[in-house]
Amino acid sequence: MKRQEEYRVIAEFSTHPLGEGTSLSRYVRSALDELRKATGVRLLVNPMGTVIEASSLQDVFAAVQAAHERVFKEGASRVAFTLTVDDRRDKRRRMEDKVAAVS
Amino acid sequence: MKRQEEYRVIAEFSTHPLGEGTSLSRYVRSALDELRKATGVRLLVNPMGTVIEASSLQDVFAAVQAAHERVFKEGASRVAFTLTVDDRRDKRRRMEDKVAAVS
Amino acid sequence: MKRQEEYRVIAEFSTHPLGEGTSLSRYVRSALDELRKATGVRLLVNPMGTVIEASSLQDVFAAVQAAHERVFKEGASRVAFTLTVDDRRDKRRRMEDKVAAVS
Amino acid sequence: MKRQEEYRVIAEFSTHPLGEGTSLSRYVRSALDELRKATGVRLLVNPMGTVIEASSLQDVFAAVQAAHERVFKEGASRVAFTLTVDDRRDKRRRMEDKVAAVS
Repeated sequence: MKRQEEYRVIAEFSTHPLGEGTSLSRYVRSALDELRKATGVRLLVNPMGTVIEASSLQDVFAAVQAAHERVFKEGASRVAFTLTVDDRRDKRRRMEDKVAAVS
Repeated sequence: MKRQEEYRVIAEFSTHPLGEGTSLSRYVRSALDELRKATGVRLLVNPMGTVIEASSLQDVFAAVQAAHERVFKEGASRVAFTLTVDDRRDKRRRMEDKVAAVS
Repeated sequence: MKRQEEYRVIAEFSTHPLGEGTSLSRYVRSALDELRKATGVRLLVNPMGTVIEASSLQDVFAAVQAAHERVFKEGASRVAFTLTVDDRRDKRRRMEDKVAAVS
Repeated sequence: MKRQEEYRVIAEFSTHPLGEGTSLSRYVRSALDELRKATGVRLLVNPMGTVIEASSLQDVFAAVQAAHERVFKEGASRVAFTLTVDDRRDKRRRMEDKVAAVS
């Protein structure tokens, strides 16, 4: 098994288009479209962001970049986002394991 | 209906005890215990944090304060946390509505 | 010396009024006005947020609450913010110490 | 003038090695070493993170990736980080402009 299949990076992405009104679901849906097209990622949407699990940080960044550019393509001219990353290399785990461990 | 029942603050809390090893689920479980005891909050655990829905920012802060102090009580001597808040007052919504809107 | 003078909570606050255009400095200035009026806090503004040093988490929360409410008073109807907190109780330090330690 | 010289991405990076004790300045210094070697970025260190200004999101990601890998090379086996990005394409600005606008 290759290393990138063992240790998974788990991240969370949240986008805030600024100046596009208070209803932003259209932009978030478009960003999610791009995340879903990204290579090697698993996604879990929650009310405050999207959790991304990937084989590498590069894959997380590529997915986020595509999602971020898409929000501009949808018409936004200023976009803020937050990306939090949890990269653990002493133990194999998937995103479900993190929730199971605290339940 | 009272205002605080109409407009709900939606937040996400993520705690990082520093210097307590790489397996932190014990601390997160304790923090969650406190969040569950907090008044007027609804919770949704995800792999990167806990979404908190409350009637007011004060209730979010009270819940987070209790959770944070508990992590120290469990033995941590340095604790970092991130709290993101989405406070929308032009429209009533619950945390489930945010996910439904982008699905 | 009282404990709260020894161990200081260091935090960072960043507000994002949504739907109020792309130029948000008016809102940030108002939020800063409130932070400056808050009790027991020291502030350091940077391009991405304001670092807050306080004797306790309660003081940080009180300052942030005032700043957040002020952004609504200025006309916003949806406001997102991020608060990151670093609470270290094994060592006395001020916010300047954190920068000095890595310089 | 090239586009990337006009519109600058402004970001903030904060790393948290987990399980490496409560004194983390050695890791932060190493991460900063890598950020300083990165191409096309300007940096501003504050008590809670490092503000990064770059011509593009790719340059921000490349700098962060190098800094993040360096923290593992220094011995950490689990590293969390937060990256917040403010990407504004309707107006040219540098990181100093953001502070000046709210002062």
